[in-house]
Amino acid sequence: MSTVSGTTLKETTVTRVEGGVTAAAGFRSAAIHAGIKKAPTALDLTIIAADRAVSAAGIFTTNLAQAAPILVSRQHLERTGGYATAVVVNAGCANACTGATGLADANAMAAQTAAALQCAPEQVLVASTGVIGVALPMARVEPGIRSTAAALARGKGGDTARAIMTTDPFPKECAVQVTTPRGTFIVGGTAKGSGMIEPNMATMLGFLTTDARVPPALLQRALVASARDTFNAITVDGECSTNDCLFALASGESGVEIDEDTYPALLAGLLEVSRELAVGIVRGGEGATKLIAISVRGAADDEDAKRVARTIANSPLVKTAVHGADPNWGRIVAAAGRSGGRFDIARTTVRVGDVLLFENGLPHDEAAPEAGRHLQGKDIRIDLDLGTGGSGSATMWTCDLTAEYVRINGEYRT
Amino acid sequence: MSTVSGTTLKETTVTRVEGGVTAAAGFRSAAIHAGIKKAPTALDLTIIAADRAVSAAGIFTTNLAQAAPILVSRQHLERTGGYATAVVVNAGCANACTGATGLADANAMAAQTAAALQCAPEQVLVASTGVIGVALPMARVEPGIRSTAAALARGKGGDTARAIMTTDPFPKECAVQVTTPRGTFIVGGTAKGSGMIEPNMATMLGFLTTDARVPPALLQRALVASARDTFNAITVDGECSTNDCLFALASGESGVEIDEDTYPALLAGLLEVSRELAVGIVRGGEGATKLIAISVRGAADDEDAKRVARTIANSPLVKTAVHGADPNWGRIVAAAGRSGGRFDIARTTVRVGDVLLFENGLPHDEAAPEAGRHLQGKDIRIDLDLGTGGSGSATMWTCDLTAEYVRINGEYRT
Repeated sequence: MSTVSGTTLKETTVTRVEGGVTAAAGFRSAAIHAGIKKAPTALDLTIIAADRAVSAAGIFTTNLAQAAPILVSRQHLERTGGYATAVVVNAGCANACTGATGLADANAMAAQTAAALQCAPEQVLVASTGVIGVALPMARVEPGIRSTAAALARGKGGDTARAIMTTDPFPKECAVQVTTPRGTFIVGGTAKGSGMIEPNMATMLGFLTTDARVPPALLQRALVASARDTFNAITVDGECSTNDCLFALASGESGVEIDEDTYPALLAGLLEVSRELAVGIVRGGEGATKLIAISVRGAADDEDAKRVARTIANSPLVKTAVHGADPNWGRIVAAAGRSGGRFDIARTTVRVGDVLLFENGLPHDEAAPEAGRHLQGKDIRIDLDLGTGGSGSATMWTCDLTAEYVRINGEYRT
Repeated sequence: MSTVSGTTLKETTVTRVEGGVTAAAGFRSAAIHAGIKKAPTALDLTIIAADRAVSAAGIFTTNLAQAAPILVSRQHLERTGGYATAVVVNAGCANACTGATGLADANAMAAQTAAALQCAPEQVLVASTGVIGVALPMARVEPGIRSTAAALARGKGGDTARAIMTTDPFPKECAVQVTTPRGTFIVGGTAKGSGMIEPNMATMLGFLTTDARVPPALLQRALVASARDTFNAITVDGECSTNDCLFALASGESGVEIDEDTYPALLAGLLEVSRELAVGIVRGGEGATKLIAISVRGAADDEDAKRVARTIANSPLVKTAVHGADPNWGRIVAAAGRSGGRFDIARTTVRVGDVLLFENGLPHDEAAPEAGRHLQGKDIRIDLDLGTGGSGSATMWTCDLTAEYVRINGEYRT
């Protein structure tokens, strides 16, 4: 990745390990069925806890209709100056558009978790996902928090990954071991989708942990930088939720100090975990049958490249064409053309898989059957060179648009 | 409409008449099956001709990937300073992304039509719609133009409306008689959709005629003003095509002079016809089963209102919810929140039909069943007051998102 550079990086290796969000030393978790989701035994409440107050960073939805837990978590991070002891998360109810009651409930979730963990309420971050406009069943949430806090342990990252799911078809977790000249540390995480996913902010719930020792400001910088090319580079349906948030906690237990020199190693770990989780959200997008990676290069600048990639990624005509395995480069060019990004159509090239479909303003019709075969797979690549001579580039991940997406969202009831 | 005002307006009446795009005096049309569409007898080529060179105005797609007929028509309007004798239109082939050959073909269509009508080539406007990236079958188009020109007559507006259709489920035409203190004139028109419809430009093919006498500059101003709240206020799928264009021709045959005093009467006529055609495009949108009118008021300004209305109109979650008759105000509020338009959620109200669903930051759950009954109809209204205290307002029309849209666009083959 272009964003990963630095003197230590060439001696840094990143390898996958088990354990998800509790892989890093100094973190425990637990999850229970509190009775928020309708399914009788589905996990719906989880706590991710550090052994003590640790560095914390957060990114929040840019949606003006911000849910109560977003308001509370943002305030808590501001008050502590970037420290937290735990994150409490529920699925099945977004606690959004719930007015003063919702705000009181989110504050109560923090206070109840803090009481169970014997820390200050502002040391607790809160996240919720699920139906909008419904109040949390606090009579079930409060005892649920007590039981969850009592069950905290290592090795329960998988339960946490399942507890935060809503319409996600599978849990998403990932962890890596980062080996540097200064020592070895772990980055782990979990995330959930899978509808209302848009690339303009964190666009989902995501929780990252590391046992590197990172000052809060540096952790925030690394989180923003890694989200830019991962969580903020995905879309399922172009919808930015009221509840999107992404948190990172750093326990320092590995003893590996992150400073300007070792920052690239932290970023490499965060990027690897975040990319895996973000791509997992798209792969598990509502109704999705194919993952589509859209890479744009030769743009005037990175912003233009992202504008073009995002417009293609949100184009219902491109998404349905991919679903139908139709190498419809015309829809790709038309979407690029309306994106607002600058390009020279006479110098633009469009590839589907490795197949060149459009060049010099004209199609390569003879190549369509081979491109169609690529589109019958599950992992689709669309590559554009905008031909401006600039070095701007960006990649966005999206999924196909299917009748199943319509069914899920047309039948879902408030 | 707020844009219609003036001293003569209170004495102006607008009433529907038959005849579509040739209802106005001084215009003839004809349409044939030239063999561009695959269906063996489908009309696919049409000419709309004035009896002589008349005032002309045009609006073109903002897509950077502009089709050859767009380039040619824009150049012709510039060269003539706003005059034209005819418009030649084909469906079944967009003549877009066809390089130098496509440009030569579009110029040839103009030249062949001009030869048949004995006018200069720059007196002919050209429009095409259909598949992108395929060359026009000029061996069929050229004799087709000769036959069509030979068949020009009054009363064939209906044939023209059918000849420009692609996936449109029904033809769209409309005409009105505008009675003013200075006399009576006609405004008529036809338009086509029905996929790749986005509100950022003319967003389809549209042809308007009038027998009012209008200087080109005033006709252009009226066309832009009327499109703003009609053709530029609709969306089917948020896609802006490579071929969108909207033309207006004014023959002057009625003898009614349009100047600053009578401008509001012309605008009223254009608005009535354009609104009917634009709403028809949405009603006939690909896979659509419901027409959705989204009205936003109480915005800081009109731009903010349109931003909010457009984001809701393009939201797949709102469009699938309406399809499922689900009064999901949460998705409406969430879409408003990510639109970039300013609003105060504590003062925002959301109505579906006449039913108040959201107020003071909280839902009216008891009202959901009644709103659900409204959503089971075919004509859906969603009204928001953004509560900013401003007077900005806007209306957008869209349709529901259905499995049929996915089927049409997933099975369609390039």
